[in-house]
Amino acid sequence: MTTPWVSESNAALLTDLYELNMLQSYFDEGMNDIAVFDLFIRRLPPTRNYLVACGLEHVLYYLESLTFSDEAIGYLRSLNRFSEPFLESLRHFRFTGDVYAVPEGTIIFANEPLIELVAPLPQAQLVETFLMNQVQMGTLAASKAARVVWAATGRSVVDFGARRMHGADAAIKQPRAFYIGGVDSTSSVLAGQIWGIPLAGTMAHSYVLAFESEIEAFRHFVRTYPTAILIVDTYDITKGIEHTIQLARELGSQFRVSGVRLDSGDLAEHAWEVRRQLDGAGLQQVKIFASSSLDEYEIQRLVSAGVPINGFGVGRNLATSADVPVLDTAYKLVEYAGKPKMKLSESKATLPGRKQIFREKTAGKVVRDVLGLMDESNVAGEPLLVKVMEDGRRLHAAEALEVCRARCRTERNSLPESVMSLSKADPGYPVELSRGLTQLQAAMLQSV
Amino acid sequence: MTTPWVSESNAALLTDLYELNMLQSYFDEGMNDIAVFDLFIRRLPPTRNYLVACGLEHVLYYLESLTFSDEAIGYLRSLNRFSEPFLESLRHFRFTGDVYAVPEGTIIFANEPLIELVAPLPQAQLVETFLMNQVQMGTLAASKAARVVWAATGRSVVDFGARRMHGADAAIKQPRAFYIGGVDSTSSVLAGQIWGIPLAGTMAHSYVLAFESEIEAFRHFVRTYPTAILIVDTYDITKGIEHTIQLARELGSQFRVSGVRLDSGDLAEHAWEVRRQLDGAGLQQVKIFASSSLDEYEIQRLVSAGVPINGFGVGRNLATSADVPVLDTAYKLVEYAGKPKMKLSESKATLPGRKQIFREKTAGKVVRDVLGLMDESNVAGEPLLVKVMEDGRRLHAAEALEVCRARCRTERNSLPESVMSLSKADPGYPVELSRGLTQLQAAMLQSV
Repeated sequence: MTTPWVSESNAALLTDLYELNMLQSYFDEGMNDIAVFDLFIRRLPPTRNYLVACGLEHVLYYLESLTFSDEAIGYLRSLNRFSEPFLESLRHFRFTGDVYAVPEGTIIFANEPLIELVAPLPQAQLVETFLMNQVQMGTLAASKAARVVWAATGRSVVDFGARRMHGADAAIKQPRAFYIGGVDSTSSVLAGQIWGIPLAGTMAHSYVLAFESEIEAFRHFVRTYPTAILIVDTYDITKGIEHTIQLARELGSQFRVSGVRLDSGDLAEHAWEVRRQLDGAGLQQVKIFASSSLDEYEIQRLVSAGVPINGFGVGRNLATSADVPVLDTAYKLVEYAGKPKMKLSESKATLPGRKQIFREKTAGKVVRDVLGLMDESNVAGEPLLVKVMEDGRRLHAAEALEVCRARCRTERNSLPESVMSLSKADPGYPVELSRGLTQLQAAMLQSV
Repeated sequence: MTTPWVSESNAALLTDLYELNMLQSYFDEGMNDIAVFDLFIRRLPPTRNYLVACGLEHVLYYLESLTFSDEAIGYLRSLNRFSEPFLESLRHFRFTGDVYAVPEGTIIFANEPLIELVAPLPQAQLVETFLMNQVQMGTLAASKAARVVWAATGRSVVDFGARRMHGADAAIKQPRAFYIGGVDSTSSVLAGQIWGIPLAGTMAHSYVLAFESEIEAFRHFVRTYPTAILIVDTYDITKGIEHTIQLARELGSQFRVSGVRLDSGDLAEHAWEVRRQLDGAGLQQVKIFASSSLDEYEIQRLVSAGVPINGFGVGRNLATSADVPVLDTAYKLVEYAGKPKMKLSESKATLPGRKQIFREKTAGKVVRDVLGLMDESNVAGEPLLVKVMEDGRRLHAAEALEVCRARCRTERNSLPESVMSLSKADPGYPVELSRGLTQLQAAMLQSV
């Protein structure tokens, strides 16, 4: 068995077999002209008014490091479906194309290309699977996070979800996307190391259980972490708070516990009662954190009701974007050898040609997008797609996460109120086609 | 920036910060006694009557290779929350415990431990995040696959989902879980390489679009792949089939195209029409494959209606287990230093003590499970948990995928009809508590 991990040494094979089938055929036919592919989301899910573009960093890293190892070529040879000259050509395979993209943290809508890739056809084809995989994951995660953070209206939101995510790659890359979407910190230590994201973490029920009693566990934990957040629902919340108060009496001025965590039952009911108990003991400075199956709707409900919760730990629903775990992501050929291309499949027709997204703003609020052709003039609005890679090399260093995060916050706050909210905006945010794109589409429909 | 990939060199940090907080405290307190943790699913999702255990292989691989690198320790030091003696102790950290588990492909139900881990407390605590992450992913995927395959009743099912999965690790490990669940092949080339799973793949719309016309594209593709499956809905399905027939006429006895793929619109309606068109041209041997937003319900609908589809390519709904993208997975301390432990949190109470699952069978059909204590005698049924690791080393080589796959098929087919079906079984499969476990639970409730 080869190593059961993915890295740049084998990521070239993280592709669908049909991509390699097509590459063999393109090789046989000598088809190596420049192709343009658009990566976009066909339609917004019912419970999303907007999406937050994310994942570009992983795409650029992959494109820069893309090579076929001897082991990869050996495996492909063993399949008996590729010719020796083609396999030989893979030894020299590199990505040499250009990439246009909206920066991470940008708000985007249906049909707007997050990435437009311009490269020799075989290169542009091979990378489809990885690009879709990474951009969908990042965009799903950042989009969900933006909603959760919006619902928390300034209260802290911590990502607790690594254990619920789909695999190890998700557990390092989704926390990054959450951070861009506005989440304050993550429990995933490796994500913290790789991306420099702030870490957060309290204690588990198992810690409390390992001691003879809850109060014993609390006593020991604060010896190591005086400002800890204590988990108080292992046995009974009222008693857990009594033990917290007892600890405060024992420690006197040495008591520096910063908060308690509720992880079960009716969080609103418990939070009110816990606040009353703590305040009654003069522990107004001890904050209340809540976790347990939270999502943006539940957080909004708690916040609207004024429930005294200072921060939220969000796991499962954020971790897998549970209400929308998959997007209708597409990666479609829109131009080949200088000619625009367009697919007509039922409900899956595509828009031809190289594109630009123009975003119009009025008084700090965005009002509409126009999806136009890349070289189209006379379209109002700020162009969103920028060139980020040329001839296979990045044009700039990776953007700082803080920059992407600030972009997301600024852009989200510039959305119309109805689009920003959790409920379905009707009408949704307007995305119109430019005159140039409309004319090209009509001309191509006529010519088919 | 460190490498943005996970491997055994950094997987020790793929943990939640609170695990390391607890480890520091256990270190300070000298708490190193043997702990037993159960990994189980608290309750079955509304649309699952059973689950298929999967992911153990990744857990064992991780446990055997678990170490903290200098880089990992350096990062932890930089957080200024761990003591130097503790950080120093991590240099020698290895997993030295025992693991009991149900083999991959085993059908399991709520509250049944998939894994029971027995190890010094800090070791057993640290690995929680990774174990839950990997076992949930595998179990979600294998469980969904078993339903899809059951619905297809013998027709081929191909996993097309790598592009929709959450990240690169999912894209290599979920295809393995799907294969165990009964899927026939995957499009994920790297999964094929790592696990030896059969690969499948056809061609994309972009291939067709890259040529001047559809018939040109077909002509070229079959030069390279004479037995290809042609995608026929890039422009118009009826014309796509006409082009397939035209190709058959041109090639005569050289025509060896094995099938056509439909990827849009009303698959039933199109399949009937396509079959009629193909048969009318004497192309009875050309099979019909369908893809496009399929799931177990849609496949069952197509199969029940006798729609002439020979095989299904399933992507998004399988890839993310879209109707149930997350399980209520728990990893709970049930014994420490020889004493049973039990958490009482609202709706999240746990069962104490070391366990065994006893499965009763009658005439080849499973009839009920009894969840009992590990050392309990006088419970009828076959014990499911087996020792797979001792003192940190596997007791056996990794099971062959075919063995796990056959186990899943056999076990699924031995389920009561109502449990095997797609609709909610009411009552569900019976899982009872043994007398020993009931008594222990009662005794502990009294003592709290």
